[in-house]
Amino acid sequence: AATFRASEHQHIRYNPLQDEWVLVSAHRMKRPWQGLVEPQLLKTVPRHDPLNPLCPGATRANGEVNPHYDGTFLFDNDFPALQPDAPDPGTSDHPLFRAEAARGVCKVMCFHPWSDVTLPLMSVPEIRAVIDAWASVTEELGAQYPWVQIFENKGAMMGCSNPHPHCQVWASSFLPDIAQREERSQQTYHSQHGKPLLLEYGHQELLRKERLVLTSEHWIVLVPFWAVWPFQTLLLPRRHVRRLPELNPAERDDLASIMKKLLTKYDNLFETSFPYSMGWHGAPTGLKTGATCDHWQLHAHYYPPLLRSATVRKFMVGYEMLAQAQRDLTPEQAAERLRALPEVHYCLAQK
Amino acid sequence: AATFRASEHQHIRYNPLQDEWVLVSAHRMKRPWQGLVEPQLLKTVPRHDPLNPLCPGATRANGEVNPHYDGTFLFDNDFPALQPDAPDPGTSDHPLFRAEAARGVCKVMCFHPWSDVTLPLMSVPEIRAVIDAWASVTEELGAQYPWVQIFENKGAMMGCSNPHPHCQVWASSFLPDIAQREERSQQTYHSQHGKPLLLEYGHQELLRKERLVLTSEHWIVLVPFWAVWPFQTLLLPRRHVRRLPELNPAERDDLASIMKKLLTKYDNLFETSFPYSMGWHGAPTGLKTGATCDHWQLHAHYYPPLLRSATVRKFMVGYEMLAQAQRDLTPEQAAERLRALPEVHYCLAQK
Ligand SMILES: O=P(O)(O)O[C@H]1O[C@H](CO)[C@@H](O)[C@H](O)[C@H]1O
Ligand SMILES: O=P(O)(O)O[C@H]1O[C@H](CO)[C@@H](O)[C@H](O)[C@H]1O
Repeated sequence: AATFRASEHQHIRYNPLQDEWVLVSAHRMKRPWQGLVEPQLLKTVPRHDPLNPLCPGATRANGEVNPHYDGTFLFDNDFPALQPDAPDPGTSDHPLFRAEAARGVCKVMCFHPWSDVTLPLMSVPEIRAVIDAWASVTEELGAQYPWVQIFENKGAMMGCSNPHPHCQVWASSFLPDIAQREERSQQTYHSQHGKPLLLEYGHQELLRKERLVLTSEHWIVLVPFWAVWPFQTLLLPRRHVRRLPELNPAERDDLASIMKKLLTKYDNLFETSFPYSMGWHGAPTGLKTGATCDHWQLHAHYYPPLLRSATVRKFMVGYEMLAQAQRDLTPEQAAERLRALPEVHYCLAQK
Repeated sequence: AATFRASEHQHIRYNPLQDEWVLVSAHRMKRPWQGLVEPQLLKTVPRHDPLNPLCPGATRANGEVNPHYDGTFLFDNDFPALQPDAPDPGTSDHPLFRAEAARGVCKVMCFHPWSDVTLPLMSVPEIRAVIDAWASVTEELGAQYPWVQIFENKGAMMGCSNPHPHCQVWASSFLPDIAQREERSQQTYHSQHGKPLLLEYGHQELLRKERLVLTSEHWIVLVPFWAVWPFQTLLLPRRHVRRLPELNPAERDDLASIMKKLLTKYDNLFETSFPYSMGWHGAPTGLKTGATCDHWQLHAHYYPPLLRSATVRKFMVGYEMLAQAQRDLTPEQAAERLRALPEVHYCLAQK
């Protein structure tokens, strides 16, 4: 029998954090692509548009007028999926028809007063201000809610309906599905091995090196062994940190700098403003804030859809929706490509 | 406190088949949409294109020439994600780095010799031929492999790279992730309640009626209580059937007819060739074919992405990728809209 080579031979890999498997079939990159090519968006975003509800001084859907903010700006989502006061659906009459109450709040956070910048084009101190705002909103909403989900949908391909640089914060009265899985896996691993799953994982990746993308004094960026999206990454602190507010000033500055480098590499990969969804996961909050959450390690997931170019994405459809995630290049190949890219943004590089 | 109304008040619902939760926030449909609008595809597919590798008589990537088939046509995928002979990755040296062998085959099945038809535009006997071919391929590949995944990606929006009506069949040496979940849930339900989960679920929905879309002598189509995609449906036999090959001739004819009606309603909803991924799930095969699989009920899932119109889809991004699925209209509202649609295709209706 042939010797196994991950880049030639399909195999399945286990995601111990979310208890899922992925099919890795790297030889599939050889197939020609005749499917959908996304529209290449022209960069015609004005710096300020008084009709854009995210801009300083603009009027929002509910009639409120935004302040003339000059840093980050946090406000209530005018079309929230979660509201603080929804009534309880009551008890179910059958085990196959279970519904439960869901309460929460949805906020929007603008990263910058200008519409024509993105995180990698912002300065390190400006990104640091975003990190501080993330920590504050986690603390503020975490006082009441067990889960505070910070996430950024970047680019029209990711359903983002407004080009102004921003993220969302949805806090809920329940632990969402993926939070529950991560809670369970990290709890089990900690009780079996006596250390936090992701702290051990980060250590191992520092030794193995082949999936590392960036390292700094306090942070690691890698393509996880079990990555599903072509250029998916995981951003981890080196120290055992459970939630965003615990990060000290040096770790926050360093995070701003490594985020700028990672997102610059992403943009440089296909010389486009790289679309993705990203989000933070940390230990549950609310009543759990005091509880020992030593099994938890803070981390951010980046899920970018592009596969071959600025206009050809990976579709998670068919087999992926009905059977199992499947990827077309190995995580090691993806990490190698990201490592090799410059840390200077292609829009700023001297020609 | 206000009285709970599912169409007004957000809540979470449990999917007992796949052990997952979904957030239902129907009031979200009120928000305006300023995001991506998909290109409206012009119907310019020629009936026969000698350069299209799925057409009768065409030459494929590997040099093989297709026969001049006049019904369905099954052949090996020229760019398979699964191959029969991949070597084993060997044992892992660490519990966080687990990989396993994956073997299998990938086939493509053309539904019809013409490129310019889709299932709802085919005749009932032509659809019946597709069903027979599905049953045969399940039997054939199921002799060797524990899981035979039949799925159709329809439309460019669903990553489909060829307009010729076709589906794919991926058979694997492992039970894929979602198959494992359905196996576990149905097994547990059966041992606790003494009946198959989906058989009981179908009975309950026939009594409750509000999520039914279509019923026939042998089949039920409904929007599941826990649906994630806006117009997701579940297609169930009334009788306890574990796998496609078990369907008798009357059930197959009736299935062809109800599929034609469902897919016609889908096309009529936004007067477009409705994109979706669909697939069949039945009891595991291979060595399990003989085992008692009484907890299993055969079913098909339809996952269509469109939300508001032929060009505005639901994006499963951000919160959905990082926390939990979320939907913007209730399953009951979706079922009501589908029920109200005519069973004559808008392209065939007399104006
Ligand atoms: O094999 P195809 O049709 O080219 O590819 C399509 O279906 C596959 C199976 O669902 C997916 O993995 C691909 O991302 C998608 O583009
Ligand atoms: O709230 P937005 O940005 O308009 O909407 C976007 O993000 C939400 C949260 O991930 C998704 O539910 C929507 O499908 C998506 O279009």
